[in-house]
Amino acid sequence: MQNFEFYNPTRIIFGENTIPKLADHIPAEARVLILFGGASAERNGTLPTVRKALEGRFTREFGGIEANPTFETLMKAVELIREEKLDFLLAVGGGSVIDGTKFVAAAVDFEGDPWSILTTHGANVKAAMPLGTVLTLPATGSEMNSFSVITRQSTREKLAFGSPHVFPRFSVLDPTRTYSLPVRQVANGVVDSFVHIMEQYLTYPADGLAQDRFAEGLLLSLIEIGPKALKEPENYSLRANFMWIATLALNGIIGVGMPQDWSTHSIGHELTARYDIDHARTLAIVLPSMLRVRQEAKRGKLLQYAARVWNLHEGTEDERIEAAIVRTEEFFESMDIPTRLSAYNIGEDAIEPLIGQLEAHGMTALGEHADITPDVSSRVLQMSL
Amino acid sequence: MQNFEFYNPTRIIFGENTIPKLADHIPAEARVLILFGGASAERNGTLPTVRKALEGRFTREFGGIEANPTFETLMKAVELIREEKLDFLLAVGGGSVIDGTKFVAAAVDFEGDPWSILTTHGANVKAAMPLGTVLTLPATGSEMNSFSVITRQSTREKLAFGSPHVFPRFSVLDPTRTYSLPVRQVANGVVDSFVHIMEQYLTYPADGLAQDRFAEGLLLSLIEIGPKALKEPENYSLRANFMWIATLALNGIIGVGMPQDWSTHSIGHELTARYDIDHARTLAIVLPSMLRVRQEAKRGKLLQYAARVWNLHEGTEDERIEAAIVRTEEFFESMDIPTRLSAYNIGEDAIEPLIGQLEAHGMTALGEHADITPDVSSRVLQMSL
Repeated sequence: MQNFEFYNPTRIIFGENTIPKLADHIPAEARVLILFGGASAERNGTLPTVRKALEGRFTREFGGIEANPTFETLMKAVELIREEKLDFLLAVGGGSVIDGTKFVAAAVDFEGDPWSILTTHGANVKAAMPLGTVLTLPATGSEMNSFSVITRQSTREKLAFGSPHVFPRFSVLDPTRTYSLPVRQVANGVVDSFVHIMEQYLTYPADGLAQDRFAEGLLLSLIEIGPKALKEPENYSLRANFMWIATLALNGIIGVGMPQDWSTHSIGHELTARYDIDHARTLAIVLPSMLRVRQEAKRGKLLQYAARVWNLHEGTEDERIEAAIVRTEEFFESMDIPTRLSAYNIGEDAIEPLIGQLEAHGMTALGEHADITPDVSSRVLQMSL
Repeated sequence: MQNFEFYNPTRIIFGENTIPKLADHIPAEARVLILFGGASAERNGTLPTVRKALEGRFTREFGGIEANPTFETLMKAVELIREEKLDFLLAVGGGSVIDGTKFVAAAVDFEGDPWSILTTHGANVKAAMPLGTVLTLPATGSEMNSFSVITRQSTREKLAFGSPHVFPRFSVLDPTRTYSLPVRQVANGVVDSFVHIMEQYLTYPADGLAQDRFAEGLLLSLIEIGPKALKEPENYSLRANFMWIATLALNGIIGVGMPQDWSTHSIGHELTARYDIDHARTLAIVLPSMLRVRQEAKRGKLLQYAARVWNLHEGTEDERIEAAIVRTEEFFESMDIPTRLSAYNIGEDAIEPLIGQLEAHGMTALGEHADITPDVSSRVLQMSL
């Protein structure tokens, strides 16, 4: 186990009918900006419930944050905050709205070009506005971590930043708020969570017994409930477990002291930036090929994954590894998430420009050994055709 | 899954040679009280390393906090703090020192009788001094939670309190600081952690998939490393895993939204209060009998425990349950922790007074169903003779 620091001060308020509790966690005199995405937050009743909880408070609203939140849109929220002297942010939505709100929180009082928050990956963030969240789409874990991914429309760049200043003060997780989600988004959320766990787990044996067991426990649970959660949208138990698992997948607890990969995410981000493929769907395309290409470096953990997660104990090592990767693909496909670029009509000619983007963003030494060069990434994409 | 709130703002600083980092987390101008237990903190080098880390800072020291920290001793620390106008507490030791420090933190500015902090279980705590910890004995999880158990010597009462105000600001966990621990204390720590997990896990099925998997993962890990960690005191990997598992066992993450038992602890506390048996050793006496007596109420979870933790799949339900309880006893005994009162020369005549103590402390409706009456507790103790 490597030395580590773990710090996560976000308060989770979990369960049915918990939105009214948010009033207890926003100062009474706060001037609140409620940020959200599209019309669904209104339609499904979440936004009205939030407004009711904050009745009598000073609030403003800012809607229209995109699925991949853009710098351009978010800077308009920054302007509104400055104009209206707002001092508390409440994100109502999924990972995109929360990620966007984190950027806004860091940008409002930032001195200099706010885009540099992304190019320095958050290293230059010295303070941020307080923020809370009401989660409606389990997937990214953003409700309980300090990370955010932002897209710059003008340049088609998608970059991440992290800062302890942007941990949400609180996040309200009411599983019933997910009942009205489109099936596609729930499937995306399951796959996104699954791959978040894999990026922290499937590297090389590093002697974190609890971390491995936690990761495997979350993977087993997602496999158990993922497909069911799609079919039974109003099954509280399935949605509650999915929601909490998605949070645990990326709140830091399973990854402390362990090597991490994240190369699948880096390559996936370029697919989204270029082709607007849903984030989770890019991960389902890249992960299986990444595991095959990196089979030797990941051998110990792939065997552990095969045994503990997929209960595969027969055959040679190579057979068990391949079977585990096939099961992974089948799991994604069982939720109607394709695992090949061809499903999006993307062919071989796309690879060179994608690798060019990776290089332009400095993503030339990815993975737990920092040895996934553009050449290796290119082989991964080839295998995903 | 029940509705829940989860909040744990303690920063963990984990790994070899991390004690010097504590200087970064105590304000430079703080007037620090370093609290510790016996001479071992000096002898094993931990206290000198802490002093070195705080060189040039204003510090005072308070030693002599007992294995079951007493109200009487701790109130002397409170006096010292008031006299010297100290404003930051640093606990250096195991759960007892940390528990004691939490009480001191809450008592210093407390208006009224500080013992009422215990009799109200912390409900009347409105503030506390900031505190940090340097952990030397993995066991209680106190380094990352808001709970504390204090004994009043004059009345032989042992009571617990909890308050969000007494979360440590940070805890330094350096596994090498455990190398010099007596074998007995390490064994105690393993069993203490094991039973902490069981109190949160072995109740009735309550549909927390991640919580169950996390608990099982920690139990499996303790079974894997516990006995080895006793035999190889300077094996970093074993001690690091043990240390982190013991923290995870009681930092709240495995128990959120789930029913909890804690009856074994309540009965065990009375054994310690009356006979000075080490806390963990009382748990090893009570838990197996508790599981046998509560077999019907706990059936679903006992079967899950048998299957997932002990890999028991053969035989009738009753056979698997009994086999799992026997394995649990064997695990404790494999670390030289007895599982019977007779090992301490305690006979049947002890039971009535112990039950009397339980009643005096209001412990008359214990367990996840609040139906463990003094009669049931008496049967548990009978079975533990």
